[in-house]
Amino acid sequence: MLYLEDFAPGQTYGSGTLTVTGADVIRFATEFDPQPFHLDAEAAKGSLFRGLAASGWHTAAMTMKLLQGGELTPAGGIIGAGFEELNWPRPVRPGDVLRVHSEILDVRASQSRPTQGLIKVRGTTFNQDDKPVQVFVGHLIVQARPTV
Amino acid sequence: MLYLEDFAPGQTYGSGTLTVTGADVIRFATEFDPQPFHLDAEAAKGSLFRGLAASGWHTAAMTMKLLQGGELTPAGGIIGAGFEELNWPRPVRPGDVLRVHSEILDVRASQSRPTQGLIKVRGTTFNQDDKPVQVFVGHLIVQARPTV
Repeated sequence: MLYLEDFAPGQTYGSGTLTVTGADVIRFATEFDPQPFHLDAEAAKGSLFRGLAASGWHTAAMTMKLLQGGELTPAGGIIGAGFEELNWPRPVRPGDVLRVHSEILDVRASQSRPTQGLIKVRGTTFNQDDKPVQVFVGHLIVQARPTV
Repeated sequence: MLYLEDFAPGQTYGSGTLTVTGADVIRFATEFDPQPFHLDAEAAKGSLFRGLAASGWHTAAMTMKLLQGGELTPAGGIIGAGFEELNWPRPVRPGDVLRVHSEILDVRASQSRPTQGLIKVRGTTFNQDDKPVQVFVGHLIVQARPTV
């Protein structure tokens, strides 16, 4: 478990991997993002995506799952206070194997709450070809080391 | 269906509503964000959230679902090119009834692709008390009106 004091800019953290299936892509899209290019391989061919692609929000959710099981383990959990960048440079396809790489950009103690602070993190989700499929820059709430 | 030329800054669009159940919150969290405050009402009491709260990514996914069925209907679908702000001002609780309000902030033709452009949108997801639970500012890809 990593307390606020354990973080410093430049640190990096890896994760395990997650394999995306076509069934996962379609199931998520059916519930949350029912657009043809996320639902049907044939219909997706004529779309901007030129083939079935995961909803960006599915990629974001899978990234959260990867973060949970990964090396970045802030005290108190992984709690996003807000993001200032989130984008999807290329589509996630059925069969893709994803992992997330996190880099600490900044560490800041809270002025109002001495028991916590914020770390600024860039999280890049890569596919099996080491190409980024999602990039976020966000702020996580982290507990400070308890004083005895 | 709204083409790029139909959009102008200041336009607003509403949506239907979506009721969040505790079962939904736990199911999403189990798959993508398995932290105690998203999984178990009792364990959540002692957390930062002071009770069971939906994963922020669940809120984002539900917002996408609301957008799909709502008044904002860009030609080509709702395709996010990137977000420059995403945050969750307060927790989403079981029983909450969500809706999304979208405002067009900017409209821009593509320099490189005359058949499309970008609209900059602020999407605010409200609960039944008209309190914001999510705010995003993002850019959507929109098709230009076809020339005959």
